[in-house]
Amino acid sequence: MNIYIACELNSLEKKIIKNNLKKHNLYFSKLRFKKIADKNFLKCEIVFGNIPSEWVKQSSKIKWIQLESTGFAEYFEVKKNLLNRNVIITNLKSFFAHQVAQTVMAGIFSLYRGLDSFTLLKKKKKWIGDPIRAKLEVLNNKNILFFGKGSINKEIAKYINVFNCKYSFINSNSKKNLFIKKLKKAEIVICALPGTSKTKMLFNKELINCLSKKTILINVGRGNLIDEKYLIKKLKNNFIKGAILDVTAEEPLKKNNPLWTCPNLILTQHTGGGYRNEMIDKINFFLNNFQRYLKKNKVINKINPKKGY
Amino acid sequence: MNIYIACELNSLEKKIIKNNLKKHNLYFSKLRFKKIADKNFLKCEIVFGNIPSEWVKQSSKIKWIQLESTGFAEYFEVKKNLLNRNVIITNLKSFFAHQVAQTVMAGIFSLYRGLDSFTLLKKKKKWIGDPIRAKLEVLNNKNILFFGKGSINKEIAKYINVFNCKYSFINSNSKKNLFIKKLKKAEIVICALPGTSKTKMLFNKELINCLSKKTILINVGRGNLIDEKYLIKKLKNNFIKGAILDVTAEEPLKKNNPLWTCPNLILTQHTGGGYRNEMIDKINFFLNNFQRYLKKNKVINKINPKKGY
Repeated sequence: MNIYIACELNSLEKKIIKNNLKKHNLYFSKLRFKKIADKNFLKCEIVFGNIPSEWVKQSSKIKWIQLESTGFAEYFEVKKNLLNRNVIITNLKSFFAHQVAQTVMAGIFSLYRGLDSFTLLKKKKKWIGDPIRAKLEVLNNKNILFFGKGSINKEIAKYINVFNCKYSFINSNSKKNLFIKKLKKAEIVICALPGTSKTKMLFNKELINCLSKKTILINVGRGNLIDEKYLIKKLKNNFIKGAILDVTAEEPLKKNNPLWTCPNLILTQHTGGGYRNEMIDKINFFLNNFQRYLKKNKVINKINPKKGY
Repeated sequence: MNIYIACELNSLEKKIIKNNLKKHNLYFSKLRFKKIADKNFLKCEIVFGNIPSEWVKQSSKIKWIQLESTGFAEYFEVKKNLLNRNVIITNLKSFFAHQVAQTVMAGIFSLYRGLDSFTLLKKKKKWIGDPIRAKLEVLNNKNILFFGKGSINKEIAKYINVFNCKYSFINSNSKKNLFIKKLKKAEIVICALPGTSKTKMLFNKELINCLSKKTILINVGRGNLIDEKYLIKKLKNNFIKGAILDVTAEEPLKKNNPLWTCPNLILTQHTGGGYRNEMIDKINFFLNNFQRYLKKNKVINKINPKKGY
């Protein structure tokens, strides 16, 4: 079988793939993606990695694409056009849940225990000590609103169980007056929503205005969810306690992006899902799914283009 | 009854004390402590706050001191000399456990999820993004060694339960070969030991040498536990993954202290126990203990000078 590998791999990772797929023809992408599809890609039935979505239509052979991400918004149109052809797209849904959940915990605890301030004070060699104590918080008994009912938020809910927090889940199908009511009470709002037409700029001025001086807003879903300009204004005026953004509308952020200088904001540069053995685990996921593909075509994590997640 | 209040209080906090102790004579300390005891103190049977230890001997009236700290090393000698007099000293043992435990969680997650780096990158407006991912870690399945069996470490053990970590407890009475064996395996070492003659410089070169490139060392007990000079050397050479120090030998740290410029080190400036309503809760603890004192002298949290904790 001809397989196109479009992930950035080190030599160890390439070796693992080669050893496991000896019987097949492997084409490693040079990862310089142009509009016209790579000739090697056009020979392949299977892809591992996020190739440009416009390539798919150019291929008559492609049957299965294993993405190396959870998000697949860019493949949404492709998938719709291919509904009558037998092209399967699978993603890494749930794969990043515990990593992202721990980046969220890192952010919450950093703001509550002052760690972002201490990092900057260390840089300046400045001791403040005792006067900071009264500004610190604990997680116990906090009111938490989970925006999104997926694997990331469920994972966080497991972690916070021991802190006796009150929490509830809503999603983009929940009614707006429910949003408003819950947001007004929340001390921590965690957004982990997929990128669909419903979620684009969902967190607009009106919703941001529901947040209070005690609220931390977190986004680990898609960068187009929040009205960033308005959020910055609120953070600058201390109308909101803090924010943690793993995803932003612009990525990478340019030097002149006002998020860089926004106070009480933690930016984790879309690394929430990362960890040391990430690529090896992705490869193992693909190899496992490939075995399923060979047997009965029953691959796991098939994306649902109607739902968008 | 004459009561001497030696805590730093705002007007609301003073009011709470006054309202609850209307029948008694209150003397609020000016908190400028000299070697010769304040005249008002010498009239009092009860103290709330950490007065200088040398004052105690100068008083013939003092019967009960409620400290506003967990540590009481400076009262150790006083207490020994007063064993035959009926002076009770109580501390705030366990009072700071969940706050300190959450500062520890903040530190671990910050190092594992790169938040300290992201704070500094934000300051520089520098995007790195993806290349950081492979440096990140998750807490799951880590090997944790708790040095100290007190309330802080027990609290942390509750929090990490959900992460499927292996953990064990040792203390300063454990055998040295047990220290060594456990330290060599540990990926996180959390020290929360009291300040006694046994714990001073206990974490010396030999123990530090047991730590590896994957180990995070944390100290939230007393600042004289660790050979800081040697720890800095190890951190600078990347022989240890990172360290989190809430307490340090020198406090406040002077500008020339080499800890300020030590890499992979988080300094939380002895604020681990702090939180927004800290003083009000301390006052409530004292008032509650005062009611016990009035009834049968059965106050809680009496310190044990033989043990030192």
